[in-house]
Amino acid sequence: MAGPSFTLAEIAARVGGEVAGDGSVPIGGVAPLEEAGPGTLSFFANKKYRAAFERCRASAVVVEPDEAPAPGRSLLRVANPYLAFAKASTLFHPARTPVAGIDSRASVHASARVDGSAEVMALASVGAGASVGPRTILFPGVVLGEGVRVGADCIVYPNVVVREGCTVGDRVILQPGCVLGADGFGFAFDPQGEGAGPRHYKVPQAGVVVVEDDVEIGANTCIDRATLGVTRVGRGTKVDNLVQLGHNVEVGPLSIVCGQVGIAGSTKLGMGVVLGGQAGLVGHLHIGDGAKFGAQCGVMHDVEAGAIMGGTPGRPHAEWLKIEAALGKLPELLKRVRQLEKELAKLKGEP
Amino acid sequence: MAGPSFTLAEIAARVGGEVAGDGSVPIGGVAPLEEAGPGTLSFFANKKYRAAFERCRASAVVVEPDEAPAPGRSLLRVANPYLAFAKASTLFHPARTPVAGIDSRASVHASARVDGSAEVMALASVGAGASVGPRTILFPGVVLGEGVRVGADCIVYPNVVVREGCTVGDRVILQPGCVLGADGFGFAFDPQGEGAGPRHYKVPQAGVVVVEDDVEIGANTCIDRATLGVTRVGRGTKVDNLVQLGHNVEVGPLSIVCGQVGIAGSTKLGMGVVLGGQAGLVGHLHIGDGAKFGAQCGVMHDVEAGAIMGGTPGRPHAEWLKIEAALGKLPELLKRVRQLEKELAKLKGEP
Amino acid sequence: MAGPSFTLAEIAARVGGEVAGDGSVPIGGVAPLEEAGPGTLSFFANKKYRAAFERCRASAVVVEPDEAPAPGRSLLRVANPYLAFAKASTLFHPARTPVAGIDSRASVHASARVDGSAEVMALASVGAGASVGPRTILFPGVVLGEGVRVGADCIVYPNVVVREGCTVGDRVILQPGCVLGADGFGFAFDPQGEGAGPRHYKVPQAGVVVVEDDVEIGANTCIDRATLGVTRVGRGTKVDNLVQLGHNVEVGPLSIVCGQVGIAGSTKLGMGVVLGGQAGLVGHLHIGDGAKFGAQCGVMHDVEAGAIMGGTPGRPHAEWLKIEAALGKLPELLKRVRQLEKELAKLKGEP
Repeated sequence: MAGPSFTLAEIAARVGGEVAGDGSVPIGGVAPLEEAGPGTLSFFANKKYRAAFERCRASAVVVEPDEAPAPGRSLLRVANPYLAFAKASTLFHPARTPVAGIDSRASVHASARVDGSAEVMALASVGAGASVGPRTILFPGVVLGEGVRVGADCIVYPNVVVREGCTVGDRVILQPGCVLGADGFGFAFDPQGEGAGPRHYKVPQAGVVVVEDDVEIGANTCIDRATLGVTRVGRGTKVDNLVQLGHNVEVGPLSIVCGQVGIAGSTKLGMGVVLGGQAGLVGHLHIGDGAKFGAQCGVMHDVEAGAIMGGTPGRPHAEWLKIEAALGKLPELLKRVRQLEKELAKLKGEP
Repeated sequence: MAGPSFTLAEIAARVGGEVAGDGSVPIGGVAPLEEAGPGTLSFFANKKYRAAFERCRASAVVVEPDEAPAPGRSLLRVANPYLAFAKASTLFHPARTPVAGIDSRASVHASARVDGSAEVMALASVGAGASVGPRTILFPGVVLGEGVRVGADCIVYPNVVVREGCTVGDRVILQPGCVLGADGFGFAFDPQGEGAGPRHYKVPQAGVVVVEDDVEIGANTCIDRATLGVTRVGRGTKVDNLVQLGHNVEVGPLSIVCGQVGIAGSTKLGMGVVLGGQAGLVGHLHIGDGAKFGAQCGVMHDVEAGAIMGGTPGRPHAEWLKIEAALGKLPELLKRVRQLEKELAKLKGEP
Repeated sequence: MAGPSFTLAEIAARVGGEVAGDGSVPIGGVAPLEEAGPGTLSFFANKKYRAAFERCRASAVVVEPDEAPAPGRSLLRVANPYLAFAKASTLFHPARTPVAGIDSRASVHASARVDGSAEVMALASVGAGASVGPRTILFPGVVLGEGVRVGADCIVYPNVVVREGCTVGDRVILQPGCVLGADGFGFAFDPQGEGAGPRHYKVPQAGVVVVEDDVEIGANTCIDRATLGVTRVGRGTKVDNLVQLGHNVEVGPLSIVCGQVGIAGSTKLGMGVVLGGQAGLVGHLHIGDGAKFGAQCGVMHDVEAGAIMGGTPGRPHAEWLKIEAALGKLPELLKRVRQLEKELAKLKGEP
């Protein structure tokens, strides 16, 4: 199958930057430096890969503005090569266009409103009073509960579940198997249990989840509905796979939440927060704008805006690095202290 | 839509406690202190929120027995305000009533027995010889394998999978996407592999999962079937999202397992055990009744009843707190020991 | 239901080993030492369980070659009792035989090729141009995207998702709810966002996932498609539940990846690597053949072949054990250094 093709100059016109070399060279795809061949566009942003760049056989390479001309190869010089490359890659991998209509093997409640331009595939399910916006795609196995609203231009991949009453904005991507609106984990211990002995009494989880515009939620990620009120993922935030967001959590806009992160109930994150993989935050915290957390970081206290945190329990990153380095010397330190004690005893004339 | 409404006195009659103020005030819903308005009931249990309580605009507030009268606001004094509030909230958010019947787009095997009062929604699947008890609800995308038994009054949310032969008790709630009865992770290394070179030979996972009465299992949580015998979740235990319970694990009754916890094969937990988020237990351990584990705790040894554990590797919590505090002083300690060594060398007349 | 039955001699003929005792004793099943009764086969490999072996009521026990004869009980002596037991168990728990055919309630695209011997159950979905090999079983709720290829003799359990273009080899087992080919987590920060303010620009995830022959993937595990190229799980590798493998990760053949492990993008693992539960690896690492990682290990640097790593950040296991032991003495060490400082001050005549 022949895909789309562009000249380098056409790509430059679309993604920005300045061509150095032959703007008429045809480009039929994008590839990493090591795998790129003639007819492809690659990119070089990390100086660590200069050798691969030198060896690279791509017809053209996206580079930083100060990159010197390369014989036998065209360059596209831009301020942000990775971003330009991403935009160029989008030219060759456009998003799926919806095929308007509801498959006869889908289950759509009579009271649901599905926009005429939306695509509802076989074996998808849309509950009573739910709405699906223009050009949104529901893949097989998707289940939208009662009263769920999904906006325009969304992609809802197979087996996603959005439970009753939750809301998804426009241009949202829900990867396969993610669950929005499961009950939050809330129980009140009941020592008597109405005569039947102790029990954990279920606190009704009567709130919802709101996912704002331009958000992406990863595969098998779980975002619990609020006990009362809203669990919110802010505009433009990206959440990776297998993440757990508890009831009443709020993640501010433009944040990045990496794989397997867990955030316990009622913790509020500001704008542009970055959480490394497997990091964990206990409940009821406030995390300031732009705070960053290393992988596996364990956070038990509020964190102010702009802080960079690492370790468990989470500490300012620089402090944590010092502790980490010191830790490696700890077994030897024990010996040194023992030695000091002996010598001191000798000085004091002890046996 | 007008929901249910009760007077404060009616609520007191149902959840217990003593009204201080106007028992005839109408209550149409519940809300947290900061969001509560006229016509709602709120609750105040944590002294930290006294300011919010003072500002609160709720018509009535659930409080502890010793709370002083508040002008212009009614109180419901109870021994356990959180529990009373949870019960009051249930009045306003009753559980979904099943709409008896099997949707024509469900796939129910001819040999399955579905109680006449149960609700099987479109696109749910019930395998050969499976049984579904009275008033149980199966949402779309649920898959019950061959011979699965689900009891009475259960809610099985969308895309839950219960594999062949597993058993679910009464009043169990299975959140979306959880998987009961996947194969345990068991392989015997086979260096020859019948002439084809080494392989990991699959040990048949021929046991089942038993989930007892009044259990709740979180979204996308996985509970593996036993190699032989039973993987068990005891009566009244609550398991959060994205938890992994390996083959032959047993969790005692009334335990609390928070999000992303992992428990490796054959580990046995007693009654009323509490595991914080992302905690991990290796296999073949015995954990005593009422033991508690902090978030991200890593446990490699048996733990006795009532112990409180923290850190990785898990230690008694008090000990771990001391180590944690000391850790922050470690870089400085290194300097102090170096200084001591210098001074001692000087005292000894070394250069 | 009467299951299969074999004499001990027949079992020996199939799984290897030498009978000591009565080869004609009938065996109708396998059981662990503590639960085995007459008519069952058990196994004894771990010397720790000798007492249970002595008490065991099994008709026959698989043992190591040097095990002495046991009165009133037959033995099957083999070099690798666990492997022999696993093979014997397979005799009693054979894999499900596919019932050839496509259920009328499945959704199979007209252009898909499903082998005549494959079984496609109700409510499974096979996309355009996809192919399903001989004797492969698709359970309800499985979704295979466009152009997906699944080989021969695979078992694809309920609600598994394989997104467009991904490839699954022969004899692969996909446990319920796992997701192959979700988009990798890649975004280029775009400070201007075409006039609408900053955004995270989505980098197209245009590659695929390749799962090679004889692999098993656990329940709700997520393996992301490559940005460009391939995310690969090598031949014979076994991956447990709730694991996250990022875009362009490569796991070599015959590796073992335990539950809740996370591996970030572009990290490459060699052959026979073993990762304990909840371990995490950052992106762009190289991990040599046969490297082993303890549970919850956090790895931030390349690791050479054969290394055994533990702790966070990951260190050689022996070194980590020493640090761990020293850590327990740290609070006391602080006191000892304080004491040294006092004594030294006294020696120096300071107040």
